[in-house]
Amino acid sequence: MADRPRDHTVPGGGPSMAPAVVLGPEPDDAERARTMAAAITTGTLGTLAIDPPGTPFGSVSPFGLDDAGRPVICISELAEHTRNLRNDARASMLVVEPTAPGGDPLAAGRVTLLGRGVEVDESGREAAKAIHLAANPHAAGYVDYGDFSFWRLEVDAIRYVGGYGRMSWIDAAAWAAARPDPVATFAAGAVEHLNADHADALLLMAQTLAGRGSVTTATAVGIDRLGLELVAVGPDGPGRIRLAFAEPAATPDAIRAATVTLAKAARSA
Amino acid sequence: MADRPRDHTVPGGGPSMAPAVVLGPEPDDAERARTMAAAITTGTLGTLAIDPPGTPFGSVSPFGLDDAGRPVICISELAEHTRNLRNDARASMLVVEPTAPGGDPLAAGRVTLLGRGVEVDESGREAAKAIHLAANPHAAGYVDYGDFSFWRLEVDAIRYVGGYGRMSWIDAAAWAAARPDPVATFAAGAVEHLNADHADALLLMAQTLAGRGSVTTATAVGIDRLGLELVAVGPDGPGRIRLAFAEPAATPDAIRAATVTLAKAARSA
Repeated sequence: MADRPRDHTVPGGGPSMAPAVVLGPEPDDAERARTMAAAITTGTLGTLAIDPPGTPFGSVSPFGLDDAGRPVICISELAEHTRNLRNDARASMLVVEPTAPGGDPLAAGRVTLLGRGVEVDESGREAAKAIHLAANPHAAGYVDYGDFSFWRLEVDAIRYVGGYGRMSWIDAAAWAAARPDPVATFAAGAVEHLNADHADALLLMAQTLAGRGSVTTATAVGIDRLGLELVAVGPDGPGRIRLAFAEPAATPDAIRAATVTLAKAARSA
Repeated sequence: MADRPRDHTVPGGGPSMAPAVVLGPEPDDAERARTMAAAITTGTLGTLAIDPPGTPFGSVSPFGLDDAGRPVICISELAEHTRNLRNDARASMLVVEPTAPGGDPLAAGRVTLLGRGVEVDESGREAAKAIHLAANPHAAGYVDYGDFSFWRLEVDAIRYVGGYGRMSWIDAAAWAAARPDPVATFAAGAVEHLNADHADALLLMAQTLAGRGSVTTATAVGIDRLGLELVAVGPDGPGRIRLAFAEPAATPDAIRAATVTLAKAARSA
């Protein structure tokens, strides 16, 4: 169901970019989106207003995801969204990656989970409470109030936007089966370390492994369980490079070993 | 149309709070919400999905507000929300105050503007572009792409939540007529200054002007064109205090003079 990439209609042509070099597998959009959403604990709940009738109504909604990627929320009978859900179950949750102050909000990853809100019954309450509280400790202040109840969003369709130019509809079964990448929790630190202490190795990887001999800088921009993402800049502009690890990595030690292996391969290439 | 405050059903009763002391006028919810929204440039656009049919669809949407408080957006024909709007004009914009990292997301102010999306025609394009770009300089990179167009949200209903316990439906005419408080742009600095350098004066204001003689600390938590907000803590717990300025203030100098007047009144009370 992927429908990317498609080009905007750019007057005078877009900025010059070197072609991407993608070597080896990368996470699919289901994994990317689940990984992103797993790190975020507040989204926008979309419901249908009673008045004006059927108008989409966005509200702030802390959530936790269950194992199948369904948002679990805790909402009050005093709130509009609860009245809306009781009137019409159709609902969605938008989850958005944080943007740095002054950053471009449309460069952020985001995923819209579309489906139906279902109130959690007594038998599911403790599990729902545990999922919700693990994500939102603030909720301890109100989860046991008499007017609050837990709801689950049954997810029927998933729209993913991974920043400019990367977007797709994710299959609902793939969403339910996807697992957050364990590397995500320490990837930012690993990227920082590579750029601070191993810039020479990154440049060599871009020049030899990716075959972009004329680039003069290479910056790590991402690491996941399957590989390393660089942006390398040369005479033909900046270009994306993806290098695969020999095998999937899950821990800081495994990531360290995998990048050392890439650096050695770059030197001997 | 105000429907606040209403109580949650609290097992064992809530935390102890001193009664609020509110002296003089305060901004109404229309002004509070317009002031909040004027400082924010990205919201969640709510539209109705084509598939699953009629399901609320949230998407990231930079916006600028026109003089009547209508969000002006710039959206691509490649995006789902644009297809959705062309299929059904019902739409909303959720605007949320930023939350500090680790902060309680439900303590933030937010406003949902509900209405209908209307494409801006050629005669309105330059004005819409100016409003949008003033709020979102990043949009300069794509506003003139052939697949982008400007849309305006005609606002029919406004739901405001000013944090826990403060919520109302704002009248549409009041929303259109409200003006952002000019003091908002420098209020945080003024509050910081008062707490850092004039804690003794704030305490005296709470004890004498607000008649809470037993409080032992008073902290400024907000300033607007009409007055000063404190939280004072005494044996009966923390309590909100609102003190009015003799006349509305709009500039840093006017705020300084107004708070000096309050401090003098507190000393001579």
